[in-house]
Amino acid sequence: MTTPLPIIIDTDPGQDDALAILLALASPEFEILGITAVAGNVPLALTEKNVRKICELAKRTDIKVFAGCSRPMLRKLVTAEYVHGKTGLDGPDLPEPTMPLQSQHAVDFIVETIMSRPEKTVALCTLGPLTNIGMALAREPRIAGRIKQIVSMGGGFFEGGNITPAAEFNIYVDPHAARLVCEAGIPLTLVPLDATHQALTSAKRIERFRKMPNRSGPACAALLEYFERFDEQKYGTDGGPLHDPCVMAWLLKPELFVSRYVNLAIECESELTMGMTLVDWWGMTKRPANATVCRSVDAEGLYALLSERIAKLP
Amino acid sequence: MTTPLPIIIDTDPGQDDALAILLALASPEFEILGITAVAGNVPLALTEKNVRKICELAKRTDIKVFAGCSRPMLRKLVTAEYVHGKTGLDGPDLPEPTMPLQSQHAVDFIVETIMSRPEKTVALCTLGPLTNIGMALAREPRIAGRIKQIVSMGGGFFEGGNITPAAEFNIYVDPHAARLVCEAGIPLTLVPLDATHQALTSAKRIERFRKMPNRSGPACAALLEYFERFDEQKYGTDGGPLHDPCVMAWLLKPELFVSRYVNLAIECESELTMGMTLVDWWGMTKRPANATVCRSVDAEGLYALLSERIAKLP
Amino acid sequence: MTTPLPIIIDTDPGQDDALAILLALASPEFEILGITAVAGNVPLALTEKNVRKICELAKRTDIKVFAGCSRPMLRKLVTAEYVHGKTGLDGPDLPEPTMPLQSQHAVDFIVETIMSRPEKTVALCTLGPLTNIGMALAREPRIAGRIKQIVSMGGGFFEGGNITPAAEFNIYVDPHAARLVCEAGIPLTLVPLDATHQALTSAKRIERFRKMPNRSGPACAALLEYFERFDEQKYGTDGGPLHDPCVMAWLLKPELFVSRYVNLAIECESELTMGMTLVDWWGMTKRPANATVCRSVDAEGLYALLSERIAKLP
Amino acid sequence: MTTPLPIIIDTDPGQDDALAILLALASPEFEILGITAVAGNVPLALTEKNVRKICELAKRTDIKVFAGCSRPMLRKLVTAEYVHGKTGLDGPDLPEPTMPLQSQHAVDFIVETIMSRPEKTVALCTLGPLTNIGMALAREPRIAGRIKQIVSMGGGFFEGGNITPAAEFNIYVDPHAARLVCEAGIPLTLVPLDATHQALTSAKRIERFRKMPNRSGPACAALLEYFERFDEQKYGTDGGPLHDPCVMAWLLKPELFVSRYVNLAIECESELTMGMTLVDWWGMTKRPANATVCRSVDAEGLYALLSERIAKLP
Repeated sequence: MTTPLPIIIDTDPGQDDALAILLALASPEFEILGITAVAGNVPLALTEKNVRKICELAKRTDIKVFAGCSRPMLRKLVTAEYVHGKTGLDGPDLPEPTMPLQSQHAVDFIVETIMSRPEKTVALCTLGPLTNIGMALAREPRIAGRIKQIVSMGGGFFEGGNITPAAEFNIYVDPHAARLVCEAGIPLTLVPLDATHQALTSAKRIERFRKMPNRSGPACAALLEYFERFDEQKYGTDGGPLHDPCVMAWLLKPELFVSRYVNLAIECESELTMGMTLVDWWGMTKRPANATVCRSVDAEGLYALLSERIAKLP
Repeated sequence: MTTPLPIIIDTDPGQDDALAILLALASPEFEILGITAVAGNVPLALTEKNVRKICELAKRTDIKVFAGCSRPMLRKLVTAEYVHGKTGLDGPDLPEPTMPLQSQHAVDFIVETIMSRPEKTVALCTLGPLTNIGMALAREPRIAGRIKQIVSMGGGFFEGGNITPAAEFNIYVDPHAARLVCEAGIPLTLVPLDATHQALTSAKRIERFRKMPNRSGPACAALLEYFERFDEQKYGTDGGPLHDPCVMAWLLKPELFVSRYVNLAIECESELTMGMTLVDWWGMTKRPANATVCRSVDAEGLYALLSERIAKLP
Repeated sequence: MTTPLPIIIDTDPGQDDALAILLALASPEFEILGITAVAGNVPLALTEKNVRKICELAKRTDIKVFAGCSRPMLRKLVTAEYVHGKTGLDGPDLPEPTMPLQSQHAVDFIVETIMSRPEKTVALCTLGPLTNIGMALAREPRIAGRIKQIVSMGGGFFEGGNITPAAEFNIYVDPHAARLVCEAGIPLTLVPLDATHQALTSAKRIERFRKMPNRSGPACAALLEYFERFDEQKYGTDGGPLHDPCVMAWLLKPELFVSRYVNLAIECESELTMGMTLVDWWGMTKRPANATVCRSVDAEGLYALLSERIAKLP
Repeated sequence: MTTPLPIIIDTDPGQDDALAILLALASPEFEILGITAVAGNVPLALTEKNVRKICELAKRTDIKVFAGCSRPMLRKLVTAEYVHGKTGLDGPDLPEPTMPLQSQHAVDFIVETIMSRPEKTVALCTLGPLTNIGMALAREPRIAGRIKQIVSMGGGFFEGGNITPAAEFNIYVDPHAARLVCEAGIPLTLVPLDATHQALTSAKRIERFRKMPNRSGPACAALLEYFERFDEQKYGTDGGPLHDPCVMAWLLKPELFVSRYVNLAIECESELTMGMTLVDWWGMTKRPANATVCRSVDAEGLYALLSERIAKLP
């Protein structure tokens, strides 16, 4: 058996973040060094609590959870309660968490971990706005050369945006942090809406979770049922996209994805296009490639992986 | 029989412009008041000559042809000889034109025509950068309330751009003119890459033109064969998109198109996203609808229309 | 005697424009080919009328007056009735003009004149927003190489702006036209607020005009008395700045000015600094010099010149 | 005797920073809680060392010195060795410091101090780019309501910039941090070039330092002699401006300054005007006042204060 990959999960749960975290907790391929919360889908006070709720659901009170930034680097915080509900985890009835929050700031934890661990061993899985990572890079630029890779859910290109015609929520909330990450020279994989909008929920897919004899499965079903409502109504689709678990899936089964190594640039100047991810899929610019960007995912394979792993949780 | 629609065609031929002009010349539904040339695919000296070549091919030396702006309103001219060849009409062997160019400036012709004709009777069909129209609006703002409608080939949204990841050529070349048009309150239909990239050439479709017993048909075949090469190579498709004839097709057979009346905004601030057409297809912004934007076209219906009409030309 | 310099005056009167025009009319060093009006201090319908009022005051009904653009190239028109009064020429009681407006558009007159006259013989004196000149450059780029020089009142650097902290009115109203002019390679002199704010009115200076035995002198006094009120109140100074006559004064007596040949750039991107004139007075950038920019004027010499010349008018 | 004002000095020495720090060390009106270094005039490794050199010169090895950010929040670091010399403190021969650097990060020290001290008791004196303060605000937004006041050397309005025609060095290096500070609602005083360019060195003023019987005085003379060279050459003045000590002087003797409470905005969008401080001195905008901005300083009073205090140091 190979050594598990040490990862830090940076997240703003969010129902889809919850499934992503559960997928990671259920996967022996990962050694979770810590989970860092950031303001995004809902404010920080809720996202850090939600991370602990999810860990407790999976009976993993050993996981270290850190609170990070309560606002983007420069812009005012935008949240998405209209998608995720008031708590950010509307859907299942999860108890208030009792496991502790670490006292260290998430940004310090990230910097300290990357600087103290051997070079290029730790991967970052980011599921929300990139504020914590951007702040870590601004605080200690040397981490750029020591991070093994970053896999981020964010952006959209042929699919367009989901909060403006140009921008996806995670990047829009903190475009400056996203640009810092994008330009830092760190091996970067972006999982944008182009891929995640193919991973639609369905009655059948949700049913698989509901029928699981554990408690995590039915909780996932409740999360997905709440979560799909917004996109079903917006796009008129039958089922909603499942974004964040794609990040873990890309590390576990990259063969589920179609991707290219291309130039990625982040728009931070014009309000009209703020937070857009410019993906040079067809090689039209002379800008050098700096990111692996996913265009599609094998949805059936993704849900199969999720079901198989979630079933192993308590 | 209904009265034909008086139109002005503003164009920068370009092979696909040529087919669009021929389609218009072959359609009794239109009364062509004049054809105005603009710098775009190739410089103005070539585009105005190319318009006359096409008119002569169709034996329509009665058409009034005007030269307009030789450069965009503000930016430096960008051309696309790498797509259209050195002449802009590479492919067939068309003789140098002998019919005259009108001495009036295209912008003056547009202003004078719109101001002297009855209100809301004249339509503009634009196939290139919108410089001439933007300059006319800046020169005589009152034309905005007198134009019946503008149908423009330009932009791209889910399809992305074709000259940068964000921008389509026509809008990129003169984004400021495009924004003037977009914000003038004129009934506007945009036919973007999203539609035109579905109207691919094919051996069979080109063959229909080649077999026509007239001279225009084989000339169209030669134009299309030259034109498809660039996109076939770029996108790896079998066949290239046919952009500009969609403008005339939309006026002749709107039922061939799927479209929505939505907000359209043009990016003019950031170099990274310059010339992008922001189409609020999903109603995410609060900005009011101001344009009918096409998302798809019935390619077979389009080529059938083209073949039927071109066959009637000399 | 030397041949007079052929000039076109482009203007948006405005009391200070009026004095500038009168100074030109009174100066045999100039051959006034035409005066072109533009929207600026007040709308075009008033500025073209005001030009004719001033010509009639000086009994120069032979002057050709042209109406130009009624709005800036791209932005919405901003006017300054709070400075110039409802008519733009508040102060004296000037009769409605009876001399005709030329039917040709000002932009066409400018283009035609520059293209038909010998190369590098005609100077442009601009006293308002640069819309007409920008539109002429966009319409016929070849005029750039044929204009002898442009002398423009506009901008401000150490003095800051007068409509925003960064921008002076003329440049702010049409920054895009100003940038076209600035980047066209035409010999350019800018007379900014830094110079004109030194040319303050005073009771004594106004008195000289009032006492003149002609009708133009007292009219100038009335114009100045109205005009100085706004700036006196705003800046708490005793007297108001006299902007536009500095343009003619620079051509007549350049020795009145301290100036440098430096890089001039126009801000057109950020709304906060829109229309700012970046003058590299200390040579801090590597950008090449492209404009002669005035920093100060000998106010007493300027008023002496004005008085001497205005006294010669009817 | 009143209680001394608790201050944190944030700095990037720099000769003028050195004099400012010495002035603070010599002033019983201040309780220096710590001095935090930031990258600016020279890289962080030098600025933190220079702070310690200065403390040791004044025999104040009790002062806590912290290293902060080594680069601006978003932009690449720009330094000014061409002004300050290779070490940042070229001029006197100061020994390598032996007093320790604190292990805590400057940003954490700032946050912790502000959060743990009574509300609105601590003042920040900033002499360099505002990166440390911006990062502290992004990390812990609640400090904004707890800082007593910030006094910053930076910007320029009627004086223009000193690194570009629009921007002063400190703000240009990290405009985003400056904007965060400017918009945080903290009582803010800006001491821009408009004031500091009036505080010119002179042979006589430097002589006063050289003749002091202590070691700090002659060291100051050596610092000033090195420092004045750059500006003397650039502006052709006799003497160079003394920027940073004005910050302490404003707290010690505000009567030396002419200032207004006005709107201050920071340009962060356009590269041409990046880092400009828009000071609405004449009340032209509707934007509310948010900063006290100094326009001039009593230079003789400033040098008298400096001499009197530096004379008291070892």
